[in-house]
Amino acid sequence: MRLRLRPREPELYEFFTRAARNAAEAAEALAELGSADTGSEELSNRLVEIEHRNDELTHELYNRLNATFVTPFDRDDMYRLGSRLDDVVDHLEAAATLTHLYQPFADVTPPPELLDQVSVLRKLGALTVTAFDDLAAGRDLRHYWVESNSLENEADKLYRMLLVRLFGGEYETLTVLKLKEIADELEEAADAFELVANTVEAIAVKES
Amino acid sequence: MRLRLRPREPELYEFFTRAARNAAEAAEALAELGSADTGSEELSNRLVEIEHRNDELTHELYNRLNATFVTPFDRDDMYRLGSRLDDVVDHLEAAATLTHLYQPFADVTPPPELLDQVSVLRKLGALTVTAFDDLAAGRDLRHYWVESNSLENEADKLYRMLLVRLFGGEYETLTVLKLKEIADELEEAADAFELVANTVEAIAVKES
Amino acid sequence: MRLRLRPREPELYEFFTRAARNAAEAAEALAELGSADTGSEELSNRLVEIEHRNDELTHELYNRLNATFVTPFDRDDMYRLGSRLDDVVDHLEAAATLTHLYQPFADVTPPPELLDQVSVLRKLGALTVTAFDDLAAGRDLRHYWVESNSLENEADKLYRMLLVRLFGGEYETLTVLKLKEIADELEEAADAFELVANTVEAIAVKES
Repeated sequence: MRLRLRPREPELYEFFTRAARNAAEAAEALAELGSADTGSEELSNRLVEIEHRNDELTHELYNRLNATFVTPFDRDDMYRLGSRLDDVVDHLEAAATLTHLYQPFADVTPPPELLDQVSVLRKLGALTVTAFDDLAAGRDLRHYWVESNSLENEADKLYRMLLVRLFGGEYETLTVLKLKEIADELEEAADAFELVANTVEAIAVKES
Repeated sequence: MRLRLRPREPELYEFFTRAARNAAEAAEALAELGSADTGSEELSNRLVEIEHRNDELTHELYNRLNATFVTPFDRDDMYRLGSRLDDVVDHLEAAATLTHLYQPFADVTPPPELLDQVSVLRKLGALTVTAFDDLAAGRDLRHYWVESNSLENEADKLYRMLLVRLFGGEYETLTVLKLKEIADELEEAADAFELVANTVEAIAVKES
Repeated sequence: MRLRLRPREPELYEFFTRAARNAAEAAEALAELGSADTGSEELSNRLVEIEHRNDELTHELYNRLNATFVTPFDRDDMYRLGSRLDDVVDHLEAAATLTHLYQPFADVTPPPELLDQVSVLRKLGALTVTAFDDLAAGRDLRHYWVESNSLENEADKLYRMLLVRLFGGEYETLTVLKLKEIADELEEAADAFELVANTVEAIAVKES
C-alpha cells in the first residue's frame, strides 16, 4: 500500500529520516565491536555521541509535534515512531558501553554469533533508512515489513545460537554473564528495529 | 459489563477465537516439557508449527483490518489484541525451542515449579478460549479479568519460588542459567495472557 | 506548558495523586533494604501491603473511568497513567520480596551502587508526588520531565556500575545472580517512573 498524505508537512518526515540515519550510523559503528583496531572506550564514546544527538532530535520532534496543529499522521503514532527509533539507538549505545565497562574481549575473542548479530543490525539500519526515504516519497513499503521481519527472525536465531554456545561450557561463568548482557542489548536493538517497521505499518493501515 | 456491538463483523471475532485456540493449544502441548515420552525436538517442532500458523493468522487479521472500513471496535485495539495473542504463542514456542537447544533435561529432571508454571499456562489458555467465545456471544466478561489476574499472580509466585530453588545451590551454574531462560519465557507467556485480558477489558470499557 | 482542562473532574486527579503517594511511600520504605534494623520479611510485607493498596486504587480508577463519560483527558491516557504508576509499585515490591526470598544479605553487605539506586528511586518518588500536585493545580510541568529524565539516567549509570562490580569476581556466582535480579527490579522501577513522566508529557502535548 501507499501513503498518500505525503505533502502536508515535509519537515516532519525530515525528523524520522534523520533518526533512521542515526540508527543506521550506530549499527554501522558497531562493526568495530571487539576489534583490536578501535579501543572499546573510543567505540563507546562514539555511540554515546550518536545517542545524545538522537535524544536532541527526538526532543525537537516532540516540541514540533506539540507546536504543529496539522500533522501528516496521527500525532500519537508520530510520538511512538520517534520513541521507537530512539530505543534502537539506546540499545546499540548500551551494547557498546557495556562492552567497554565489562571488558569481555580482554579475555576472549568475540563469538561469531555476536559478530553476526551486528551484521544483521547493520542490514536493519540500511533497510530502515531506505524505508523512510520511500515513506517520504510515497513509495510502496510492503517490502520493508517483510524484510525487517525476516532480518529480525535471523537476529533471533543468532541470539539463540549464541546462548547455546555461552551455556555450553566454553567460557568462564562471569564471561558468560558479560557476553549475555551485551547480546541482550543487540537482540533488543533488533526487536526495536522491527517495532519501528510495525509502527510504520500500523500508520500505513490507518492512512490507506 | 457486556459488549453490545456484537453483530457487526462476525468474521473479525473469528480471528481472535482462532488465535485464542492457538495459544491454548501451544500451552497444552507444553504439558510434555521435559517428559521422556516426547523428544524435545519433536515438541519444539510442534510449537514452531503452531507459531507459524498463528503468524499467518495475525497477518491475515492485519490485512482484514486494513481492508475493512467498519470494525466492531477501535481498529488500534484490534491490532493490539492480535499482537498480544501472538506474543503468547511466541513465548510458548520460545520455551519449547530453548528447551531443545539447551537440553537442560539431559542433566536434571524438571523442577516442580517449572511444571506448575506450565499447568497455570494451560489454565490461562483454556480460560482465554472461553473468554473469546463469551465475547463473541456478548456474555459478561468480568470473571475473565478476575481469573486471569489471579492465575497470573499464581504464575508469578511459582516463578519466584523456582528462582529460589535455582539460586539455592542445588544445580550447576550453567543448568541454572538454562532453566532460568526457559522459566523467563513461561513467565512472559503468563504476562502476555494477562495483557490479552487487560486489552479486552480496555475495549469493553470503551464500548460499554 | 500548562494543562488548562483542570477543573472538570477533580476526583480523577485524586486517584493519580494517591497512586503517586503510594509509589513514593514504596520507594521510601526501600531505604531499609539490606539494613539490619528491619527484617527482610517485615520489609517485604510492608511493600506487599502498599502494592495491594495500589492495586485496589487502580481497579477503582478503571471502574471510575468506565462509569465517567466526561474525563479531563483522553480516557486511554488515563488508563495508561494508572497502569504505569502501578508498574512502579509492582517493581518496588518485587525488589523487596526477592530480597526476602533470596536472602543475599545473609552472605554479603549491600553493594553501595544498589543503595544508591534506592536513593535515586526515593528522589523519583518525591518528584512524582510534587508533579501530580502541580498537575492538579495547573502549574507548569516542564521541570518534572527534565528532572525525571536526569534521575533515570543517574539510575541507569548506577545499575551499569553495579553490574561492573557484580561481574568483577568479588562475589560468588549465586550471589551475583541474586543481586542482579534485585537490581533489575530497581532499574525497571526507575524506568517505570520515567514512563509515568513521559505519559504526563504526552497528555500535556495533546491538551496544550
